[in-house]
Amino acid sequence: MKLPVSTIPEPDAARMQCIACGRVQVDPGGWYQCAACGDLLELIPPQPSSAAVVKSWPEIWRVRRDSRHAEDLSGVWRYRELLPQFPLAPRGIVTLREGNTPLYELPRLAQAAGAAAVWAKHQGMNPTGSFKDLGMTVAVTRAQALGAQWVACASTGNTSASMAAYAAQAGLRSLVLIPAGKIAWGKLAQSLDYGALTCQLDTDFDGCVRILRELVRRAPVYVVNSINPYRVEGQKTMAAEILEQMAWQSPDHILIPGGNLANSSALGKGWLELAALGLAAKIPRISIIQAEGASPLVDSWHNWQGEKLQPRPARTLATAIQIGNPAAWKKAVRVLRSTGGDCLAVNEMEIAQAKAEIGRQGIGCEPASAVTWAGAKKLIHSGWIQPGQSLMLILTGHTLKDAEYILGFHRGEIPGPDAGAPAGLAGLRHPPRQLPATVEAVAAVLETAGRP
Amino acid sequence: MKLPVSTIPEPDAARMQCIACGRVQVDPGGWYQCAACGDLLELIPPQPSSAAVVKSWPEIWRVRRDSRHAEDLSGVWRYRELLPQFPLAPRGIVTLREGNTPLYELPRLAQAAGAAAVWAKHQGMNPTGSFKDLGMTVAVTRAQALGAQWVACASTGNTSASMAAYAAQAGLRSLVLIPAGKIAWGKLAQSLDYGALTCQLDTDFDGCVRILRELVRRAPVYVVNSINPYRVEGQKTMAAEILEQMAWQSPDHILIPGGNLANSSALGKGWLELAALGLAAKIPRISIIQAEGASPLVDSWHNWQGEKLQPRPARTLATAIQIGNPAAWKKAVRVLRSTGGDCLAVNEMEIAQAKAEIGRQGIGCEPASAVTWAGAKKLIHSGWIQPGQSLMLILTGHTLKDAEYILGFHRGEIPGPDAGAPAGLAGLRHPPRQLPATVEAVAAVLETAGRP
Repeated sequence: MKLPVSTIPEPDAARMQCIACGRVQVDPGGWYQCAACGDLLELIPPQPSSAAVVKSWPEIWRVRRDSRHAEDLSGVWRYRELLPQFPLAPRGIVTLREGNTPLYELPRLAQAAGAAAVWAKHQGMNPTGSFKDLGMTVAVTRAQALGAQWVACASTGNTSASMAAYAAQAGLRSLVLIPAGKIAWGKLAQSLDYGALTCQLDTDFDGCVRILRELVRRAPVYVVNSINPYRVEGQKTMAAEILEQMAWQSPDHILIPGGNLANSSALGKGWLELAALGLAAKIPRISIIQAEGASPLVDSWHNWQGEKLQPRPARTLATAIQIGNPAAWKKAVRVLRSTGGDCLAVNEMEIAQAKAEIGRQGIGCEPASAVTWAGAKKLIHSGWIQPGQSLMLILTGHTLKDAEYILGFHRGEIPGPDAGAPAGLAGLRHPPRQLPATVEAVAAVLETAGRP
Repeated sequence: MKLPVSTIPEPDAARMQCIACGRVQVDPGGWYQCAACGDLLELIPPQPSSAAVVKSWPEIWRVRRDSRHAEDLSGVWRYRELLPQFPLAPRGIVTLREGNTPLYELPRLAQAAGAAAVWAKHQGMNPTGSFKDLGMTVAVTRAQALGAQWVACASTGNTSASMAAYAAQAGLRSLVLIPAGKIAWGKLAQSLDYGALTCQLDTDFDGCVRILRELVRRAPVYVVNSINPYRVEGQKTMAAEILEQMAWQSPDHILIPGGNLANSSALGKGWLELAALGLAAKIPRISIIQAEGASPLVDSWHNWQGEKLQPRPARTLATAIQIGNPAAWKKAVRVLRSTGGDCLAVNEMEIAQAKAEIGRQGIGCEPASAVTWAGAKKLIHSGWIQPGQSLMLILTGHTLKDAEYILGFHRGEIPGPDAGAPAGLAGLRHPPRQLPATVEAVAAVLETAGRP
């Protein structure tokens, strides 16, 4: 390929601000970093012309629920007043009808833990099975508007699956870069299904990122890694959807898994912007829960008050948050500070236990999602979440994303004894039993299994 | 367990009709079979008091989209005027917000095949990843209304996953019976996640069914196998949701996978009932597509005009429709006859190819779902579906239900050469490539991969 010297043209001038030095600049495209200090950029939300205009938005969003237009059927673009404005490609937005995800109330968990109410917002019910779709619809729409032929990322997990699906829907090609010999086939299945081109490079993960960074400078490739600020804009609409589902009332606490920290940053950005607009009367405390083996933000928060972050090797079975050097940590610290949230880690046993307890409510999720309930129990136990307060768990991925984990738990290979379960939740493991083929044998098992 | 002599009490008298002899009877509970001839029963829909009442339903259903009540948030119970009426348990319906699944338009597939329009209704976007949830919400609600403590089935696939989730949501226990030594662990993962009790019995599948049949006679266990007619009632609301999404216009053709045939029966029942009510102006031809290795209905339809069915061993990689002795075959024949549909089989290569082509639109599905597109292409090629006609594919399961299949395809282990792809859809396989870590190497791959 003859590498052209120009990057993708930027026909408009979406305004961005550096999260570190605060410098305002037009969308630089390419690698999305501050021209002055090199830190991350975020989009400046469009300013409504008056308070009266903002007041009309909830009714506009409500009415759109009854529309059959693509941009209203999307649970992200329905709230497009909150999104950056840019000229679309002729075919419009790229959507798979993301968002519109269920909010479940879990009264048995609330009762067991002594909370006023426990809700679970299930982002794993998005089209490709993870919350990434909320941001990807905006990023890939932006890619198409810019005339990109390829979208790309360095990831083999939920991000590449989401990217590949939206690219396919748009008729764009998608490129996944991964370190050679590090293929997790199961995680790659979705990306292959949607037609992504996967390259194993003879380098490590950081090497893949370096190549990607160089590639976007020289070819019409649009990068959708987490540095892309359009993804955050899509993900922040989660705050509006939750508020709408809750009749514009906030819970006291929200708990969200912390990996690369873009999701918690987006949730916080969304809630704070809605509060500034006067659409959220209360700001919930947003607490970020990490796995013990991948908890650099917890260290930063408790040891250095969020002033610095020490990257470290990450190791947890909750693979979606197995990240030792999170890109968006400064944004996450800002969310903890401005909402009054806490940040803590839970161990593998607590994660497995929490996942099984959520499953027992009929709600499947990937292990990373379960850190929220594990963290909630600890915060209730410590008294930080008080009796009578309400809390919401953000579940980020579908249970089918990691079937192996479930089998490992029920085979006894993953720690998580039922001993620590709250009252009424014991007996979480159910390895298959072998029985003679008689009614009496089955009936005897029913008898000993007892009531739930 | 001391087995009580009585079965679950039946407090009300929902009316059912035998599909073979036509005898009308009150809900017999237990095993749900005709008291006279032993064949399957189906529920008689409630009769509206007047045509004016029926005319108001679409507006009522529309308004409910804007409600926050559980029975309105469900894409099944929203259409509750179509469902059997029975007294609910105090906690109401058992729902995980099933239904509300996306209808995708696939213009590139339409263009490639020469159809006026191709839509895909994606039932794999239901909470547990398959269409089974539509029926299970009604069956488990019924179980709870009857005071059952356990729900049970003989299945390790999509049915048991769905049953286990709804039972967990309801606070009921669930029992899965499977033949010893036949555990497909991957398929069992979801059921275990939701807390199902699994018993491996020292017998074959029919033996498991016999034990289940005996068990319901003697213990408060409610069976949700496909003989349960409440499941069909929930599944039939799919017709109403499609019509509502299509602004009450019907496509010319609907193609649906055929395994146990309960889903095609339900879709047909729903559409015919809506037509009888005056809510569907046109009845689409509903065609049932089977895998060649599991096509007893195709044999029945073409060799015996649907008058008899010869069970046979089933073998296909599309495991969700790997059924040689489908329970609902008589109902399915009725749907073919009354809608003017066709019934045909597609081979493994055609299924793999079709699945990859659907994936290339950004839509993932399990292999069984892809038979619809494979069948559509054959029916277009034969001229049975005419140029300018519109068609809709019913996708039944989520792509994450069978990640192994995708990997097998991209590794070249599953047949499906790209040679047969319609124009513009070639190059469906993308095994990962190994490259040196240079920008030039990656750029060269982009160049040769070309445009989509």
